[in-house]
Amino acid sequence: MSTNALPAQSGDFPAWYGEVVRRAGLAENSPVRGAMVIKPYGYAIWETIQRELDDRIKATGHENLYFPLLVPTSVLAREGKLVEGFAPEVALVTEAGGKQLEEPLAVRPTSEALIWSTYARWVQSYRDLPLLYNQWANCVRWELRPRLFLRTSEFLWQEGHTAHETEKEALAEALTILHDVYADTIENVLAIPVLRGRKSESERFPGAVDTYTLEALMRDGKALQAATSHYLGQGFARAFDVRFTGRDGSEQFPYATSWGATTRLVGGLVMTHGDDRGLRLPPRVAPQQVVIVPIVREDEEADVLQAAATVADELRAAGVRVRVDDRPELRPGFKFNEWELKGVPVRIELGSRDLAAGAVTVARRDTGEKEQVPLAQVSAGVAELLRDVQASLFEDAHGERERRTLRDPSSYDELIEYLREARGFAVAPWCGRGECEARVKADSSATIRCLPLDERAAEPGVCVCCGRPAVTSAVWAQAY
Amino acid sequence: MSTNALPAQSGDFPAWYGEVVRRAGLAENSPVRGAMVIKPYGYAIWETIQRELDDRIKATGHENLYFPLLVPTSVLAREGKLVEGFAPEVALVTEAGGKQLEEPLAVRPTSEALIWSTYARWVQSYRDLPLLYNQWANCVRWELRPRLFLRTSEFLWQEGHTAHETEKEALAEALTILHDVYADTIENVLAIPVLRGRKSESERFPGAVDTYTLEALMRDGKALQAATSHYLGQGFARAFDVRFTGRDGSEQFPYATSWGATTRLVGGLVMTHGDDRGLRLPPRVAPQQVVIVPIVREDEEADVLQAAATVADELRAAGVRVRVDDRPELRPGFKFNEWELKGVPVRIELGSRDLAAGAVTVARRDTGEKEQVPLAQVSAGVAELLRDVQASLFEDAHGERERRTLRDPSSYDELIEYLREARGFAVAPWCGRGECEARVKADSSATIRCLPLDERAAEPGVCVCCGRPAVTSAVWAQAY
Repeated sequence: MSTNALPAQSGDFPAWYGEVVRRAGLAENSPVRGAMVIKPYGYAIWETIQRELDDRIKATGHENLYFPLLVPTSVLAREGKLVEGFAPEVALVTEAGGKQLEEPLAVRPTSEALIWSTYARWVQSYRDLPLLYNQWANCVRWELRPRLFLRTSEFLWQEGHTAHETEKEALAEALTILHDVYADTIENVLAIPVLRGRKSESERFPGAVDTYTLEALMRDGKALQAATSHYLGQGFARAFDVRFTGRDGSEQFPYATSWGATTRLVGGLVMTHGDDRGLRLPPRVAPQQVVIVPIVREDEEADVLQAAATVADELRAAGVRVRVDDRPELRPGFKFNEWELKGVPVRIELGSRDLAAGAVTVARRDTGEKEQVPLAQVSAGVAELLRDVQASLFEDAHGERERRTLRDPSSYDELIEYLREARGFAVAPWCGRGECEARVKADSSATIRCLPLDERAAEPGVCVCCGRPAVTSAVWAQAY
Repeated sequence: MSTNALPAQSGDFPAWYGEVVRRAGLAENSPVRGAMVIKPYGYAIWETIQRELDDRIKATGHENLYFPLLVPTSVLAREGKLVEGFAPEVALVTEAGGKQLEEPLAVRPTSEALIWSTYARWVQSYRDLPLLYNQWANCVRWELRPRLFLRTSEFLWQEGHTAHETEKEALAEALTILHDVYADTIENVLAIPVLRGRKSESERFPGAVDTYTLEALMRDGKALQAATSHYLGQGFARAFDVRFTGRDGSEQFPYATSWGATTRLVGGLVMTHGDDRGLRLPPRVAPQQVVIVPIVREDEEADVLQAAATVADELRAAGVRVRVDDRPELRPGFKFNEWELKGVPVRIELGSRDLAAGAVTVARRDTGEKEQVPLAQVSAGVAELLRDVQASLFEDAHGERERRTLRDPSSYDELIEYLREARGFAVAPWCGRGECEARVKADSSATIRCLPLDERAAEPGVCVCCGRPAVTSAVWAQAY
């Protein structure tokens, strides 16, 4: 294993990340620059994320549907900010069926334009509202500096697109999605603690009135935008001429939201929990929660394998996702390393000595701790351990984030030095002016990740950059 | 309702189909020619189909993964038959990120080329085999005569791509998918009876050694290819230089299969079961299995709505997908028509008179029959009724197919007349020569849908076209 050791996480984080993603079998590059192959283990994680998000999307009253991949450029162009924001990243189909097309078709970078051009046909009366729809789809945004999962020319996501009678309803929708769908999944399933906030104007989605965001901190001190939910006001309704007859008989424009979460969450999972031995997967998202490694010598093989199968059946009956690794050609130490690399939360070792003692050895991936557990208690013990690993990984990440959060730096220089070295989040009062935001970015490469939702609107104090009265607290960091 | 009646199915089948698809809220056209918007009700049906297929794909040992949408044209070109077969339908991305691309990228028409170019990296030894992978994805094949669900420029599907050590294994895989994944889902969930067969050479997938197919008969006498499973031999392995070291140390090419089922199955569902009142959905695939329509007069509203909610809760507890249609502004008759159009298998009517009698009125969509069911027996009664509707729809469709199957026509002229009028499947001995196949097609527009798997290899008798000795029985029909 020593010759194959991963790059140290603390030494070269990007190299560590790339190697973990590849060696754990999550994804690899494809012949198309910037587009990745999501391998079975990575895709199984994505399927869990999908199911968890989808359950919550449906539980909050939404239905799934599907809009076409290709968007006429004239439709895309109808919302000025949207087309301006995405033009540099768009891929265009110009030939199809052996002919030059009269109008190029954009491979969807996002679907607001196509969907709102269709909503014009679906909405006539207030009785048609709200429209609460979501789609699971692929998206293409041309990427010059691709990174597996984090920045890819094609990614998978869900995109919700809703239309409402009132501004109040639309705002409530954007926040319901942020809290009840995204934060709940990301914190309670992926065990990734997130800051909930609004974006500053310069970081908003093109065409949005407000962009709400969840921001997570990776183990290299950089932030990852985990999901966003946009309140779009009436801009899309006006651009696509979507009107309805209101309760008072007057003609009105509906209020819109859109919201998305993507395969980059898989990258966030790696960078939040991984260590020098590889992935550490929270049990709720782990494709395999337990791996059983039988330690066999030839003369005892049958007994040990039989016992392993019995333990596995018991765990499966208790709803645990378990795999027995009985590959005969590989040594236990090799298997231990491989499952640690893949981040399986709990390993059970089972040899003839364990069997004789009526027990198994249980090792948890997050801390490396091992203990003997009597055979009769394996099922209950593992269930408790999985809950504990889930909670511990969240606590770990939360502690790491708090440790790496600089609050109220005493000077601009302290702020800049901290941000430039990517030591984590910096929270400081801000005057709300773009000049100060731009100055920090120029001096440190850091951006405002969010204006926290849970802080009082106007912090006492003065802007960390210019000394003018602050209107809000801002969270800065370098970001993926 | 009379002014809004559907076109008669027997009068203008294509008009009937289009109206049912649109009015039942399954799908509609989009601004991109040939690409459709799959609406929530249609997508909910597709989600059930997906889940049923996915469960069986996983139960037979496969894992999901995801390959990129865009395929370099040079990669696509490496398998001659594949590129030749799909070239007329390919859409090409020629610009991205604001620049002309050096090499155009095809929007995947199918993924064999990209996947096999990657398998070259994944397969070295017989120990790496089999590869049993599947992906859920969208596909683009430019379509000049689009029809909602049946022929669309973009469609959704799953595509499986496997690699095996031996020919025997690969052949067994192709048939496992045909029988245990596709036929099981299509017959037992969608209640669509299918013929299992092989394609003749002219109808094979480009690059396949053998294409296995499931063929269903629609209510207009035309056939629908419901799913296909291809045995690809070693062609793709050779074209993409995928080799492995075998058990004997020699270098070998693996054997391949690929297999797909698409959103056209939703169209097949409509055309197999629909009638003049709209859809008839088999309960196992129906997004709503039961709709409860309370019949309220103002003074009794609370009691009736309460009773409806109680019945709904009971049914939900029994695992039934149920909806209470309590929209106050609409009359019961309007609701009945709407849910009949949408094909909900069972309707429960509940009014104060029913309540007083301690019963509800239960109507089944497939036959229109109504009966009174005591409140205490609703749950058990509905469960039995749903099973019965599921079985009856299959029996209906099976009977219809048998009635529309002409076996052993007495002459070539009888065959041609039957096929030209699209009266259904015609089964007749065939010499196996392309000339005869082409002649039937020229004379009748019908093609060989399949060479049935369950018939004896060589039928006694002579080719219905040329009188030469027959080598097989063939099933002809006009087809979608």
